[in-house]
Amino acid sequence: MRLGKNGLIWLLLSLLLSMLPVGYTWAQLVERSIPAPTNINQNHCPCILQDNSVFFRVTAPNAQKVQIDLGKKYDMVKGENGVWTVQTEPIEPGFHYYFLVIDGVAVADPASQSFFGTGKMSSGIDIPEVGADFYTVKDVPHGAVSSKYYYSNVTNSWRRLFVYTPPGYDQARETRYPVVYIQHGGGEDETGWVVQGKTDIILDNLIAEKQAVPMIVVIANGNIRAGGGGYSSEGMAGFKKEMTQNIVPFIDKNYRTKANAENRAICGLSMGGGQSFYVGLESLDYFSAVGVFSSGIFGGIRSAGGAGFDAEKEIPGLLSRSGEFNEKLNLFYISCGEGDERVEFTKAAIATMRENGLKVESNTFPGGHEWQVWRKSLHDFASRVFK
Amino acid sequence: MRLGKNGLIWLLLSLLLSMLPVGYTWAQLVERSIPAPTNINQNHCPCILQDNSVFFRVTAPNAQKVQIDLGKKYDMVKGENGVWTVQTEPIEPGFHYYFLVIDGVAVADPASQSFFGTGKMSSGIDIPEVGADFYTVKDVPHGAVSSKYYYSNVTNSWRRLFVYTPPGYDQARETRYPVVYIQHGGGEDETGWVVQGKTDIILDNLIAEKQAVPMIVVIANGNIRAGGGGYSSEGMAGFKKEMTQNIVPFIDKNYRTKANAENRAICGLSMGGGQSFYVGLESLDYFSAVGVFSSGIFGGIRSAGGAGFDAEKEIPGLLSRSGEFNEKLNLFYISCGEGDERVEFTKAAIATMRENGLKVESNTFPGGHEWQVWRKSLHDFASRVFK
Repeated sequence: MRLGKNGLIWLLLSLLLSMLPVGYTWAQLVERSIPAPTNINQNHCPCILQDNSVFFRVTAPNAQKVQIDLGKKYDMVKGENGVWTVQTEPIEPGFHYYFLVIDGVAVADPASQSFFGTGKMSSGIDIPEVGADFYTVKDVPHGAVSSKYYYSNVTNSWRRLFVYTPPGYDQARETRYPVVYIQHGGGEDETGWVVQGKTDIILDNLIAEKQAVPMIVVIANGNIRAGGGGYSSEGMAGFKKEMTQNIVPFIDKNYRTKANAENRAICGLSMGGGQSFYVGLESLDYFSAVGVFSSGIFGGIRSAGGAGFDAEKEIPGLLSRSGEFNEKLNLFYISCGEGDERVEFTKAAIATMRENGLKVESNTFPGGHEWQVWRKSLHDFASRVFK
Repeated sequence: MRLGKNGLIWLLLSLLLSMLPVGYTWAQLVERSIPAPTNINQNHCPCILQDNSVFFRVTAPNAQKVQIDLGKKYDMVKGENGVWTVQTEPIEPGFHYYFLVIDGVAVADPASQSFFGTGKMSSGIDIPEVGADFYTVKDVPHGAVSSKYYYSNVTNSWRRLFVYTPPGYDQARETRYPVVYIQHGGGEDETGWVVQGKTDIILDNLIAEKQAVPMIVVIANGNIRAGGGGYSSEGMAGFKKEMTQNIVPFIDKNYRTKANAENRAICGLSMGGGQSFYVGLESLDYFSAVGVFSSGIFGGIRSAGGAGFDAEKEIPGLLSRSGEFNEKLNLFYISCGEGDERVEFTKAAIATMRENGLKVESNTFPGGHEWQVWRKSLHDFASRVFK
């Protein structure tokens, strides 16, 4: 077919019009990207390109300025029909909170699922990691996650917690199981380890592969203000009371647990890692395994312990009587993201503890202060505990 | 104290500055209102005044126009420091989806919890109803809600469903229970009856008061496109196959059910009411109780059956052989909100069915096409079924 001059201009114009600001046509974009698994309603965008950059798209004809805030803020560019788009830099695999910022107001992106994090409902984008299928639902026996209400005499209110029971729990009517108590981070709640963390899927897969023993996992809400909060033994007093006097007895009463320290572990991420450190190490009559994922208590963030972390001061005897702790602890585990500002402080604290004879198992994972590190930390911790 | 002229001007000015646009100071607003129970992070706004009007507040210094969309759109007014506010008219008690509209973009309000409804994450405001505490967590024995994965050969994917088990289920190891299969509405998913619907709390309270027999409630995702969807026997074919060939067998295999039609009910709201009508009445070898809440199949909305609803055509024999249906149905229940555009069509359809000898139990509740009506419908249905 031969085009006349007008035809050629028309063709060029329509090609230009069909281009998105970053240089793809819609068809090219769809071909070269996958929708984020966290999208809803069959939205294609946000979508992930081969280099793990993400293409965002928002219709906002009357907005003056639209941004994507992924920790780093990306200005979107207004195109045809009020459609704003931006392509980010390549992004780490795993789960990232993000916000859509419309004329300065940070909100959740209507194209995405929302998650409770950063103290409010946030968007999240889950970028698949090549080769990491340990948190993918597979054709293996599945456990269940139950929500339960219990009454707290610390907060004087009914509170919700989630309980993962392993495959076969309902059928094996006499079997008793060890229990992991796992805590979320600051600005999150009990939904964190269920939704973002995919605890049930990780445990189902581990148990199917016989990498972990069948266990119960209790996912409670750690936002207890009694005691003042903060990273110290005193600050954690309210949470400690809640855990040992309310949560553990409630679980032992309502589930077929092995109700002793030997078969109880406590672990958590960030704020929940700090809680596990203090409450776990101070309550070795309750717990024999402690996991601390990406905690700021060792230093690296202003709001927490800072570089002045002194293990002996925080937990008297932890260094000077390390043998006693070694005897009572079947597992003391510390992990951190390799890109997390806390990692060097964490390594230094581990080194000091080991120099003083304390047994510490540890690991680091690629990524920053984010859920992919915590999914891997749970995977790693659960494969080591109760063995 | 006597004020000089400057002092008086200063006093008036500071009074003016402390006034919010609708005429309250912040202290007055806090005194005269309660935060919505659906708020997060201890936000006071949105807050509910004594006449059930709602005061919304959003900080958006750079926005040109901000609205609250509660079905009706309210323009917010920009005040000091870029804070926009509006006080709505008095609003019906119960749960309402709403959106914050920033320069034309409808998003979830960061001050509120988000809920999957209207096809995306939406804000919701739950306005307490005086005297209605049937969906309040009380000091009664509590059941549990579990999430489970099952494989669907209709969608060829792993799908999640929720299962409510009544108090004592784990302990009463030989007891078997009847089962209600309950469906969400269009634009919603399996989280609807758990979160907005408060199914577990309603059943816990009903069972404690001996108004309902202990039962299992299965809350699956009804968004099955196979069969085409739509309000007809053909449109529901995919959902029917999913329910009878995948979901019911999965539940009977994994829970201690009374696995027969006598002890199975199906009900749902709006789209889920239509699904229950067609699938329930066509599958009386599976179900002996059918509940239809606020369905559009009888007419009243353009997208559904319209005024031309013909029960005999939709379910052959329903009118002409009503005796046969009466024999197999222990409960055929239809409800609707009194302010719902569907209500008159629903009443007409019920009248026709009754004229033809079909036994129909029915009820209406104050309110429109909303969750408060559906909570009450579940409460009513569960107190009638399996008796």
